[in-house]
Amino acid sequence: MRLTAAEARRRLAAARVAYLATVREDGRPHVVPIVFAVDGDVVYSVADPKPKDGPDLLRFRNIRANPSVSLLVDDYDEAWERLWWVRVDGSASVVEAGAERELTIRLLKAKYAQYATWTEPFGAAMVLRIERWASWALAD
Amino acid sequence: MRLTAAEARRRLAAARVAYLATVREDGRPHVVPIVFAVDGDVVYSVADPKPKDGPDLLRFRNIRANPSVSLLVDDYDEAWERLWWVRVDGSASVVEAGAERELTIRLLKAKYAQYATWTEPFGAAMVLRIERWASWALAD
Repeated sequence: MRLTAAEARRRLAAARVAYLATVREDGRPHVVPIVFAVDGDVVYSVADPKPKDGPDLLRFRNIRANPSVSLLVDDYDEAWERLWWVRVDGSASVVEAGAERELTIRLLKAKYAQYATWTEPFGAAMVLRIERWASWALAD
Repeated sequence: MRLTAAEARRRLAAARVAYLATVREDGRPHVVPIVFAVDGDVVYSVADPKPKDGPDLLRFRNIRANPSVSLLVDDYDEAWERLWWVRVDGSASVVEAGAERELTIRLLKAKYAQYATWTEPFGAAMVLRIERWASWALAD
């Protein structure tokens, strides 16, 4: 069954990690875990100061070529009757600088205490405008 | 940094849930959580007897049209220095019947005790031949 719209929204916003699927320029899919924040029908993420190697930011190259993305949150539980997921599909953009990137950083710092102690500069933001919601759960 | 090949393989096989990205016929990405088993360089999954609504099996329609898939496992941890992920890319096929589907069901029942008590028939299998490995972790 589907979650109610309000419950899907609540679970998406509360999730600590999401799985972002994009399409590579050659048409193959790509998926990576991200931290993120939600405000209304927009999902914000940022290339953060965590050390990572270059290929991780393939997601930004993909989005520049094909803005369609799919973002999933779930909560795996060995009691399968408690499984659920929420997925949002939409159009993403990479924001290198400016007010929308600053908002992204504020929202992420508000959600993740881990960012508070870090002083390295953030990278570009990813801003995802949600166009469709999907969800699944056995129990609401 | 990357995990060693052996460690990436160990973590993929041990993970309880994975995130499968496919590409829809219209070129947009799709991502869904799956349970799965690994044997060598092959990932097996099956449309299982869990109740679910139709859209979940969109993944099979996508694979029939475009066999390229990307599969991710991770372990989110609030201590970000412990974050890691393993991703495999490859070519998938949908197997409706026969020995490879029977092998899939055996591997899944061996890995997930949840399947043991269920008697409903399984659906089609998804068989993913791994072509590329990627991984990321701060600490090995």
